[in-house]
Amino acid sequence: MVEKRQPIPVAEAVHRVMDYAFQAKKEHVPLTQAHGRFLAQAIRADHDVPAFDRSPYDGYAIRSVDSKEASSQHPVRFQVVGEIGAGYVFEDVVGDHQAVRIMTGAPIPQGCDAVVMLELTHTFEENHQKYMSIKRPFEAGSNISYRGEDIQKGTVLIEQGQTINPGVMALLATFGYEQVPVYRKAVIGVIATGSELLEPGESLQPGKIRNSNAYMIMAQIERAGAEVKYFGKFSDDLALCIDHVEKALQEVDILITTGGVSVGDYDYLPAIYEAIDAKVLFNKIAMRPGSVTTVAARNGKLLFGLSGNPSACYVGFELFVRPIIRSAYGHSQPHLRREQAILGADFTKPNPFTRFVRARIDYEKGKLVTVPSGFDKSSAVSSLATANAFIVLPGGSRGYEKGMQVDVLLLEDLQGSEWPWDNIEKSYR
Amino acid sequence: MVEKRQPIPVAEAVHRVMDYAFQAKKEHVPLTQAHGRFLAQAIRADHDVPAFDRSPYDGYAIRSVDSKEASSQHPVRFQVVGEIGAGYVFEDVVGDHQAVRIMTGAPIPQGCDAVVMLELTHTFEENHQKYMSIKRPFEAGSNISYRGEDIQKGTVLIEQGQTINPGVMALLATFGYEQVPVYRKAVIGVIATGSELLEPGESLQPGKIRNSNAYMIMAQIERAGAEVKYFGKFSDDLALCIDHVEKALQEVDILITTGGVSVGDYDYLPAIYEAIDAKVLFNKIAMRPGSVTTVAARNGKLLFGLSGNPSACYVGFELFVRPIIRSAYGHSQPHLRREQAILGADFTKPNPFTRFVRARIDYEKGKLVTVPSGFDKSSAVSSLATANAFIVLPGGSRGYEKGMQVDVLLLEDLQGSEWPWDNIEKSYR
Repeated sequence: MVEKRQPIPVAEAVHRVMDYAFQAKKEHVPLTQAHGRFLAQAIRADHDVPAFDRSPYDGYAIRSVDSKEASSQHPVRFQVVGEIGAGYVFEDVVGDHQAVRIMTGAPIPQGCDAVVMLELTHTFEENHQKYMSIKRPFEAGSNISYRGEDIQKGTVLIEQGQTINPGVMALLATFGYEQVPVYRKAVIGVIATGSELLEPGESLQPGKIRNSNAYMIMAQIERAGAEVKYFGKFSDDLALCIDHVEKALQEVDILITTGGVSVGDYDYLPAIYEAIDAKVLFNKIAMRPGSVTTVAARNGKLLFGLSGNPSACYVGFELFVRPIIRSAYGHSQPHLRREQAILGADFTKPNPFTRFVRARIDYEKGKLVTVPSGFDKSSAVSSLATANAFIVLPGGSRGYEKGMQVDVLLLEDLQGSEWPWDNIEKSYR
Repeated sequence: MVEKRQPIPVAEAVHRVMDYAFQAKKEHVPLTQAHGRFLAQAIRADHDVPAFDRSPYDGYAIRSVDSKEASSQHPVRFQVVGEIGAGYVFEDVVGDHQAVRIMTGAPIPQGCDAVVMLELTHTFEENHQKYMSIKRPFEAGSNISYRGEDIQKGTVLIEQGQTINPGVMALLATFGYEQVPVYRKAVIGVIATGSELLEPGESLQPGKIRNSNAYMIMAQIERAGAEVKYFGKFSDDLALCIDHVEKALQEVDILITTGGVSVGDYDYLPAIYEAIDAKVLFNKIAMRPGSVTTVAARNGKLLFGLSGNPSACYVGFELFVRPIIRSAYGHSQPHLRREQAILGADFTKPNPFTRFVRARIDYEKGKLVTVPSGFDKSSAVSSLATANAFIVLPGGSRGYEKGMQVDVLLLEDLQGSEWPWDNIEKSYR
């Protein structure tokens, strides 16, 4: 039977989903495997960096006071009393007109307060004793990298929930994280539905299409930082489907089905939700594409029924599934990042509902410019490959002209936003 | 002995490195593992999408000519002669005032040229025969997704060398790529050098620092799309080091050493290059940080001697190693993407050489704005974690003021640029 569906605003739909936000468990992974994961704990400096005063150059460590009278006419000479490479410590105290040959990174010897770069010294020997001379004075503190000048002990460097990028890796190594506390990846199950679906390895048949959504979503799941569990396709038998969903739910944190949720006689999803006693949070959203996105919850676990249309499915994932994954990793900005951009082309379609146009963001002389990335139908697959943003066009307009300012949601951004939905659906303000 | 080094411009250094550009071998990976890899072959549509005229909605397929007279006063009735779900084909030809119940995605039956959405129909039975009626006419073509409207057979959809993102995954699935031709990941070896280095698991000791560069570079290698092979630390024995490098070179496409390349007595690298008969392409660059970056080549393989200073090492990797990796994957834009941004804070340091300031890019009302991400010394580690760009400040200036327009190189961008170096080092123009 045909079900009557009441569309709700996007922001309301996101709210209802985020009511089921959960926190992923924590685990430790070796540092070599931490790149790209999400920190489960803030990184706090447990020592100063540098941990000791050190030399930024190869040269000679001296007492600056001894250099006071140096000039080209009257070079001052120093007795070279030793040398230290990086990693070693000069054990003696350096005295009057003495110098220590010092390498980049080595600690400043006791008594010294300046380093003279190698290029500015002249070295020689007398009676089997090494000397060096300089032709100008150096002030106290010259060429010294002071303890703590980069990072002071106790500083919180990175908050929990942040992505581990190459720079964060350097911090983790610096502060001794051989094992890194990260959030365990959320496990997202994917089931494809639809009797029209062929797998990529199958030949085309009349009336059938290849299953593109499952593979697309797998990559979206990975991009969001979670782990995929693909359960294949639903059978045509309702009892088997119910069993399938029950079993899948045991193994995942979130279950996504794609396809078969259009308003039609053949749709099993409502029956499945009922059979497993899942509460439907909504089954229609005032947006294009993706209006027939359904989300249900059972024992705190979310079931996303995304559209079978590729563009609708893609949008549904990014708006509703991505933030619930990111927030599981302690991220305070789990939603797509919202920015403003100049529309680079006319968009003339009238727009009863809020529309998310798959688009390409570019820069022109430092300004964000955006153009639709291709064919704009819910069923389109071509426009997804080059999309790195959604243009958000509020409902109730007759179209948008090139040069207008529009809101965009960025797809390849690591920063995200806390809540991009204020004042974005103008028709619902 | 101290070696005299002649600095060369950055663009010249990049040119010398790119002379050794190579192409990675190709391999096939299962579609489920293709996300994030680089396409080794363009994707060309081998069929139209949709492959047949199909219905975008649930409803009834009709011959539009039969609906001509329909109005609210005079509904037109159609005999329902069958139904088709997605994936099935209606085998008969639909005749005069006949209709077929059709589901989203199902092919339009022969004879029909319009679809009426379910909501606009009234259904009833008479003498065990199903009927539906409509109250307005539908034009030929109404609610039909035409064959090829999304993608036409023969179109090149994605060029080789592009990253496989979720949208590309959808295309690969659509066109039957159960196995995907991708470039084999380049294997990049990493050797840390420096007697001052402790591993992350070791306790701090006087004069020593933890090895942060190797782990940072591992993540940079992964971010660039290549595979890491970590060979640990060099020993202090020159003969052993030479042997170490010789063996490592057998197993990698590119070898990176980090540390130990400052101008100093303890530096083994020049001796190693000589011993293995590697040609030094350059050993000093007119830039900060990273001026002592050395690159050598042996039998067509590049050896990068990056600085031991974290910021210098990081910059050296992104400017010189990243493009050689990306170009190995057939990418026509292997270099960091260059854009313009507004400087969000003063930068007062005088600048004899081109400077790459680790920075954070942000948007303000659709404009790119950038500020340095922290402590700006070659040895800094703190400023890398939040950096997503380099501000490029040409040499020969006394400083830059907030509000000025500057060039930036983007670090987390997937698009890259073909050659960002034209007119960027103003002192060398």
